Amino acid sequence: MHIIKTVLIRHGESQWNKDNRFTGWIDVDLSNQGYSEAKRAGQLLKKYKFIFDYGYTSVLKRTIHTLWVILDQLNQTWLPIQKVWQLNERHYGALQGLNKNEAIKTYGYDTIQKWRRSFKDIPPKNNKNDLFLGTNDIRYKNIETNTLPNGESLELTANRVIPYWQKYIEPKIYNNNCIIIVAHGNSIRAILKFLNQLDDSEIFNIEIPTGIPLIYEFDNNIKPIRYYYLSE
Amino acid sequence: MHIIKTVLIRHGESQWNKDNRFTGWIDVDLSNQGYSEAKRAGQLLKKYKFIFDYGYTSVLKRTIHTLWVILDQLNQTWLPIQKVWQLNERHYGALQGLNKNEAIKTYGYDTIQKWRRSFKDIPPKNNKNDLFLGTNDIRYKNIETNTLPNGESLELTANRVIPYWQKYIEPKIYNNNCIIIVAHGNSIRAILKFLNQLDDSEIFNIEIPTGIPLIYEFDNNIKPIRYYYLSE
Repeated sequence: MHIIKTVLIRHGESQWNKDNRFTGWIDVDLSNQGYSEAKRAGQLLKKYKFIFDYGYTSVLKRTIHTLWVILDQLNQTWLPIQKVWQLNERHYGALQGLNKNEAIKTYGYDTIQKWRRSFKDIPPKNNKNDLFLGTNDIRYKNIETNTLPNGESLELTANRVIPYWQKYIEPKIYNNNCIIIVAHGNSIRAILKFLNQLDDSEIFNIEIPTGIPLIYEFDNNIKPIRYYYLSE
Repeated sequence: MHIIKTVLIRHGESQWNKDNRFTGWIDVDLSNQGYSEAKRAGQLLKKYKFIFDYGYTSVLKRTIHTLWVILDQLNQTWLPIQKVWQLNERHYGALQGLNKNEAIKTYGYDTIQKWRRSFKDIPPKNNKNDLFLGTNDIRYKNIETNTLPNGESLELTANRVIPYWQKYIEPKIYNNNCIIIVAHGNSIRAILKFLNQLDDSEIFNIEIPTGIPLIYEFDNNIKPIRYYYLSE
């Protein structure tokens, strides 16, 4: 049986992962540790001799910088990269920018946990004038306004991640291309839920670590055979 | 009259620019000064408030790194980038890797000058086993072997740069997109010759400085109105 490998990887630690703030679509950069994690991921992929055909990132710099650092380690800077908003982190609406403890004070622990851990619950929308809207931004100018989210459940996140996966990424894997996708905790969760057919509650038991390559092995029909984190 | 601006820029100084070696398709990185030039170019483009719709580079890291540094300065990391071999430097055949003084010793000053300064003269082909072939490389694996050069005159360089320009870049400018192209001394020369309708000898009087944004202003029919280097 012919096996095709795909690499999924969550961006390295960001400044706001470190500060324990809800980030969502806010374009926060990697922390120094995040850059080191990306470098280590690149060295690991090099050790296992990965040669990629296409790379994918979100339009947020924490995934783009992670891939740039990886490509430098692999000496594959020339790789074609698609940067797509559909791979962005879940949009956290009015929670974006809040420290998680502040958010608990404002909304209460149970409510925050419901927003964080339920598949269908949607956090409050952003105020349109909010600096942290994250959508009122030139990078989204060619996307129809009513397509762009302003607060998402994980379900709504999956509703834009999975169609993109099926339409653009899956056919490339099917054609035997080696793909690397650098995305976010929840956009990767959406893909895992889809590939492993997890139910709505199971997916929240899966924490995606930052900067560790997650390898999926597919058969000829893009059915996942197994998946594992790459290690030394 | 509506004016559309396009930015052309030669990569920052490379290690081999510094060492005075024929580089061509060899994938040499920027020198420290090259990185500083790229940073300054980004700051300058930021000062003049350039917001891009598409970026183009060759598949060689000296142009890719130059654009990455520029995009970081502009906070436009999300820009879609096409990396295309057609924008590569002129392929210098057997001269690639030679120090320019060594090359003069081997081939004689007049011959080297002819290869460097005539529009149609082609340097000797590479030995196919040569480490410096620069084409026997996974990044070119999807390109038909007989399409790839192994020693080019400036004319042959133009013969792949200009069709790409006309087919992919010109229509985007025509549709009012702001474009940045990071390329090489000779691929930029080919574009300048084409746009300004220079004759075969005139083009060699034009030296393209490293890391300085060259602004082209076009009218609605992509006829160049004027061009100038951006300065403080």
